[in-house]
Amino acid sequence: MPSLNQLSINLATVREQWDLRQAVEGCAHLGIRAVAPWRDQVARIGLEESARILRDNGMRVTGLCRGGMFPAATKEGLQAAHDDNRRALDEAVALNAECLVLVVGGLPAGSRDIAGARAMVADGIATLLEHARLAGMPLAIEPLHPMYAADRACVNTLAQALDLCDRLGDGVGVAVDVYHVWCDPDLEAQIARAGAGKRLLAYHICDWLVPTRDLLLDRGMMGDGVIDLPRIRGWMERAGYSGLHEVEIFSAETWWKRNPEEVLQTCIARHARAT
Amino acid sequence: MPSLNQLSINLATVREQWDLRQAVEGCAHLGIRAVAPWRDQVARIGLEESARILRDNGMRVTGLCRGGMFPAATKEGLQAAHDDNRRALDEAVALNAECLVLVVGGLPAGSRDIAGARAMVADGIATLLEHARLAGMPLAIEPLHPMYAADRACVNTLAQALDLCDRLGDGVGVAVDVYHVWCDPDLEAQIARAGAGKRLLAYHICDWLVPTRDLLLDRGMMGDGVIDLPRIRGWMERAGYSGLHEVEIFSAETWWKRNPEEVLQTCIARHARAT
Repeated sequence: MPSLNQLSINLATVREQWDLRQAVEGCAHLGIRAVAPWRDQVARIGLEESARILRDNGMRVTGLCRGGMFPAATKEGLQAAHDDNRRALDEAVALNAECLVLVVGGLPAGSRDIAGARAMVADGIATLLEHARLAGMPLAIEPLHPMYAADRACVNTLAQALDLCDRLGDGVGVAVDVYHVWCDPDLEAQIARAGAGKRLLAYHICDWLVPTRDLLLDRGMMGDGVIDLPRIRGWMERAGYSGLHEVEIFSAETWWKRNPEEVLQTCIARHARAT
Repeated sequence: MPSLNQLSINLATVREQWDLRQAVEGCAHLGIRAVAPWRDQVARIGLEESARILRDNGMRVTGLCRGGMFPAATKEGLQAAHDDNRRALDEAVALNAECLVLVVGGLPAGSRDIAGARAMVADGIATLLEHARLAGMPLAIEPLHPMYAADRACVNTLAQALDLCDRLGDGVGVAVDVYHVWCDPDLEAQIARAGAGKRLLAYHICDWLVPTRDLLLDRGMMGDGVIDLPRIRGWMERAGYSGLHEVEIFSAETWWKRNPEEVLQTCIARHARAT
């Protein structure tokens, strides 16, 4: 059974109820020792103040969400994406995050060229990686569910992300989010491959609801859906992953409307018995 | 440029406006020479009468939608699925369909075992295939988008479908629907593989809209979304596919609310210039 000290809370899970300070203090109050903030949450409090809050509460930071969004229709757009990713990198360092999570981006406006978008992603990560290595900050490519290929991430399978890692070399790995990869028929083999290559940087959990009523904001609490979470955790562990289990739930109609302390208590309980 | 005689209309495209008779006559009136009906549309008119309407209008039937839905939680459920598939097979024969399209089904109620569901699918197709071979009716496995893995089809990539075909032998192939596979990074190679194995039984087209507002009923008209349809058609043709291009659009808020003749005219125009 997973223990409380393996739990991390991605702060998107309570983003509608709490700001970063409230969320970190709320987690600490319940004995949770790790979180993963989003950049907009950090920006609202300020970077230095956010770092101080995390440090004062003794929080591990399992990742900063997020860099990425590399493809663009113009040179200026590509440069703007790069500049923003440099800032994200600096923020991850300032927050002592264990990795910078990359949601790589989809098609540029007006484009139907997904192969081209994928090439832009490879170039974007390669350029960012030079800086990331100097900063000692691992980059975690998060393959997103194929339903987000057009508008959020054109890297949609673990195999694709690991092929990228193989080409890019050291300093880059993957964030495995069960929501995006749970039904990949090749999941077990690709997790093993990632482990063998020391690429497993983060493990995100939630659940897939049936029916799913919204493409983006209807993720489920662990145990409420159809993902075999213990089985996938087993694959992660056999592949050598010893990091935390980060709960990340976007849920406009359910969990974002609940009392946030109750949400965290539910995360703790479900993490223990349903993952 | 694709020509009108390469166009087929999946009758789901006008299902809210027209019954089978109206839809077939509406297609014939505009010079469309092929359709693909759904079983519920056939049932409402009656099987013999539907066959007569199709024959009298000189329609090719590019497929019958649909068999499948193999997994079940009980022996009785599995048997019921098999019985229903036998009926679907008989209907496909009676309608002179070029294939029976299989949407294979997702997880049985209460199950989180997707590998188990996939095994049930393999068993279900194998059993049906004995009858399909005797009847001379090709079975077309349609890989569905991973967002339907839990509740509609646990075969989600062309590679997975072709692996199944390899194990099953003759008499079974794939229906390539761009909506489900457009962003598969391995699509070109898997289409080539399917062609080399004589497995390309059907080609379904529509478009992926950005944003997509509903998981099931928000498919786009060709040209309105982000799928590079000419490129994928090129891959199909290079793989030796010489069948028709079947337009299948589920669109509760747009195309199902339009005048059906206008819908068909739009299909004809877009097929010619955007696919």
